[in-house]
Amino acid sequence: MRSWWGWGAVEEALSEQETHALVSRLAALMPGHDLTDHQPPDPAALGLAAPRINPPTSLAALCSADPVDRAGHARGKAFRDVARNLTGRLDHVPDLIARPRREQDVVDLLDWCAREQIPVIPYGGGSSVVGGVEPRFDGPVVTVDLTAMSAVLEIDEVSRAARIQAGVLGPSVEDQLRPSGLTLRHFPQSFGFSTLGGWLATRSGGHYATLYTHIDELTESLRVVTPAGVSESRRLPGSGAGPSPDRLFLGSEGTLGIITEAWMRLQHRPRWQVTVSIAFEDWPAAVVATRTIAQAGLYPANCRLLDPAEAFLNAGASVGGGLLVLAFESADHPVDAWLNRAVEIASDHGGVVTSRRERETEASGRKDDAADPAGNWRSAFLRMPYQRDALVRRGVIAETFETACTWDGFDALHTAVTEAARAAIERICGTGAVTCRFTHVYPDGPAPYYGIYGGGRWGSLDTQWDEIKAAVSDAISATGGTITHHHAVGRDHRPWYDRQRPDAFAAALRAAKSALDPAGVLNPGVLLG
Amino acid sequence: MRSWWGWGAVEEALSEQETHALVSRLAALMPGHDLTDHQPPDPAALGLAAPRINPPTSLAALCSADPVDRAGHARGKAFRDVARNLTGRLDHVPDLIARPRREQDVVDLLDWCAREQIPVIPYGGGSSVVGGVEPRFDGPVVTVDLTAMSAVLEIDEVSRAARIQAGVLGPSVEDQLRPSGLTLRHFPQSFGFSTLGGWLATRSGGHYATLYTHIDELTESLRVVTPAGVSESRRLPGSGAGPSPDRLFLGSEGTLGIITEAWMRLQHRPRWQVTVSIAFEDWPAAVVATRTIAQAGLYPANCRLLDPAEAFLNAGASVGGGLLVLAFESADHPVDAWLNRAVEIASDHGGVVTSRRERETEASGRKDDAADPAGNWRSAFLRMPYQRDALVRRGVIAETFETACTWDGFDALHTAVTEAARAAIERICGTGAVTCRFTHVYPDGPAPYYGIYGGGRWGSLDTQWDEIKAAVSDAISATGGTITHHHAVGRDHRPWYDRQRPDAFAAALRAAKSALDPAGVLNPGVLLG
Repeated sequence: MRSWWGWGAVEEALSEQETHALVSRLAALMPGHDLTDHQPPDPAALGLAAPRINPPTSLAALCSADPVDRAGHARGKAFRDVARNLTGRLDHVPDLIARPRREQDVVDLLDWCAREQIPVIPYGGGSSVVGGVEPRFDGPVVTVDLTAMSAVLEIDEVSRAARIQAGVLGPSVEDQLRPSGLTLRHFPQSFGFSTLGGWLATRSGGHYATLYTHIDELTESLRVVTPAGVSESRRLPGSGAGPSPDRLFLGSEGTLGIITEAWMRLQHRPRWQVTVSIAFEDWPAAVVATRTIAQAGLYPANCRLLDPAEAFLNAGASVGGGLLVLAFESADHPVDAWLNRAVEIASDHGGVVTSRRERETEASGRKDDAADPAGNWRSAFLRMPYQRDALVRRGVIAETFETACTWDGFDALHTAVTEAARAAIERICGTGAVTCRFTHVYPDGPAPYYGIYGGGRWGSLDTQWDEIKAAVSDAISATGGTITHHHAVGRDHRPWYDRQRPDAFAAALRAAKSALDPAGVLNPGVLLG
Repeated sequence: MRSWWGWGAVEEALSEQETHALVSRLAALMPGHDLTDHQPPDPAALGLAAPRINPPTSLAALCSADPVDRAGHARGKAFRDVARNLTGRLDHVPDLIARPRREQDVVDLLDWCAREQIPVIPYGGGSSVVGGVEPRFDGPVVTVDLTAMSAVLEIDEVSRAARIQAGVLGPSVEDQLRPSGLTLRHFPQSFGFSTLGGWLATRSGGHYATLYTHIDELTESLRVVTPAGVSESRRLPGSGAGPSPDRLFLGSEGTLGIITEAWMRLQHRPRWQVTVSIAFEDWPAAVVATRTIAQAGLYPANCRLLDPAEAFLNAGASVGGGLLVLAFESADHPVDAWLNRAVEIASDHGGVVTSRRERETEASGRKDDAADPAGNWRSAFLRMPYQRDALVRRGVIAETFETACTWDGFDALHTAVTEAARAAIERICGTGAVTCRFTHVYPDGPAPYYGIYGGGRWGSLDTQWDEIKAAVSDAISATGGTITHHHAVGRDHRPWYDRQRPDAFAAALRAAKSALDPAGVLNPGVLLG
């Protein structure tokens, strides 16, 4: 059962034992912090106002007005969403949750909403951490939950591609592909609770560190229902015919149409996999080593540099400078030559291999043993959102933000962001921690990902976080980073997105939206308007 | 000196000896064909009408009305362009050639043209083979030649990127980068006579067969002058902030603005390079071998499958099924492990290595010796356009076209295209040949490239070719290919592009153009309008 207020599945929340361990650690780290556990309110008792709209008879069977359903769809799963949910404050709640079963239902729903000028929020797994699915405006709204459209419709084993409905959740994609020996191999941290359509609409970043990082590169063609008609691109491995149609819809975050299907590029499931952990005594040397590996043309599956705080908190490793989790995998050949060269580069910069693990992999990203720092880190990675929820309940600010920048700009960005974060934490929380890791590395720059931990004040957690978030976003923006590498823009990132986006492109995008969504009903407040 | 009527530099045209050898081969291949050499007309004697417009005084110094200059800018360099030039028929000629020296000149030129509603054709090296730079409409027109803006302005050696002006020709990019040890490593066949801005505007495909094939992937940020203002994107290695601004301008073919600068991703110049030629007795097996290599995660620099006719005509090799030119290169490490595995895959499908060459490379793509089929093929590759011109002068139809499709659709596409081409050649030329090679291979499909050779009728070469082109384009379109993988759309591909492009995307693109180019002066007839 999905949690209405927090991350993921209720039954996967931290066990009592895990909670106890976490709270003990917390007590040591934040002496004096009030550790009261604030229970989530009963969603049925929130006193939601009745829906302000009724669906036409023809669409009634697709629509739910159940209060718990509506409460569960009111927000994404960012820290600030969870913090607000826990206080029982639901300022805006969708009036109806519509669940189309086939594409024509989506067409009919958009027709109705465009005709009646009712805003529509496309909704996949609801895992947005940027306010992407929250109706942050007055007036009625229909949330269109795509998860009933969840089939892999066709598999082309020769070209290694599949036609997949947009509402499918991550694990189901992999389950449906497994008999063919193929995998989409796209594992964002939200994997279990996010959908293909959500990944496409938000330019999701997968677990893999290099080469095919964003869902964009895995996309062969898209089918999108817009109020102005259905757009379907041709299945092509590459094309030079005008600006890419798919690239307009990738990242459109539900503002231009609702993605219903996509042909996605697949890969054979990996057979060989080697992961090593490499410790550095010096952070700048670790960064140079990581950059050199990223520029060597070796394309590691994982190349995740953790700073000492991140390594300690989430991988249980004590390092002076940084811990590099480096992995290679292949369905075709042993990867020793690749790994050996990458390790050689790391050694040239003072890196020392502290663990090595080879295995036959299921590529699910979810079956690690916990025998080494790299394994610890990956297990922690998938438990992090549940841990975050346990912390929020105890008044702890625990949130992440991410960016990307060029290598030459990284030191300045990192210093500015870290200083802004520390100053904001000190001002707002007294004490706390800032951690950093690279989630993805490109030849021309890293994608740094930051964790923030601080003791908050119950009842003001969201506004406290907003203040920290504004400070770090300003620092990112001022030092040339992107306001988001893979969390999307939503409503939370709008002020910084507006600064980052070229004005002429904004004008073009606004015009494109007017052409596709003349009534302006699609996800108002996101990206535009 | 640039040829006004044909490809490239006058002094690089075929030597008498080369011409003699070509004509002898031709006489053997096309017995009975009239081999009269039709000399190009004197461009000064074409009797061009005087310009219909005068620039304002402030822009006069940037503008040329010289008839030879205007004749040289009237068309691109497709077969049909050269054939028409040779007859002295210049239906439409730009009234003025404007050569901006800095970005403000581009702004001022667009201001003037938008105000006076004068169409503008952005022009880089003029190597379009799709009618992209030809004013195929009545009324005055200004062609904006960017080649005076040709500097590499900044090199960031840490991130491996450079800020480069759009009007720079290929060899000059590499010359300016050479002292840094870095290379853009983008070598389209037009390399010597095309510009960065042209590559970006047309989504050019480089010489390399896998991974970073299109210029799109090498683009870190763009600066574009539109009539509605200058658009500049942030330098980022990756981003998930809304639809990519750069991807709207990449492939816009001068219809949305004039690209003035770009930050481009660079690489270290390769140190290790190994090239092998692999012969197959069976075409289907060669295709499967090539596909398997493309799906193995090895990322060869070259992976070019030539069919027997292509291997014979351009690599001097006799093979029963196909010749695979396979190369690996790296600036970081020896590539034996990669090559050995690829050769092993080829052997599994009956491929036999017939030559192998290792070398320290200059990565210029222009310094091959001619000791083996792969080397022969690369030399021929760069001489092909000159050879084509010598053939046109002798009334031979010699032209290429290209596409991309998924692997599962390749057999049907190849059969349909080849049959359509053969039938058209037979109907129009009597006898001739069709050749095929893969220029690029992706995990989900190849980019097949076709050559057409047939005896034409002097004076009707262009209309004869148009008939063949329509037949093969219909076949590509009907079997799911793209009308262009890397030659762009221009004016020649419009009917098929309009079929391929999703209608909803067309509406969005039209709206975007109206926002950026409200007067509709930018490259009318290309992509839109």
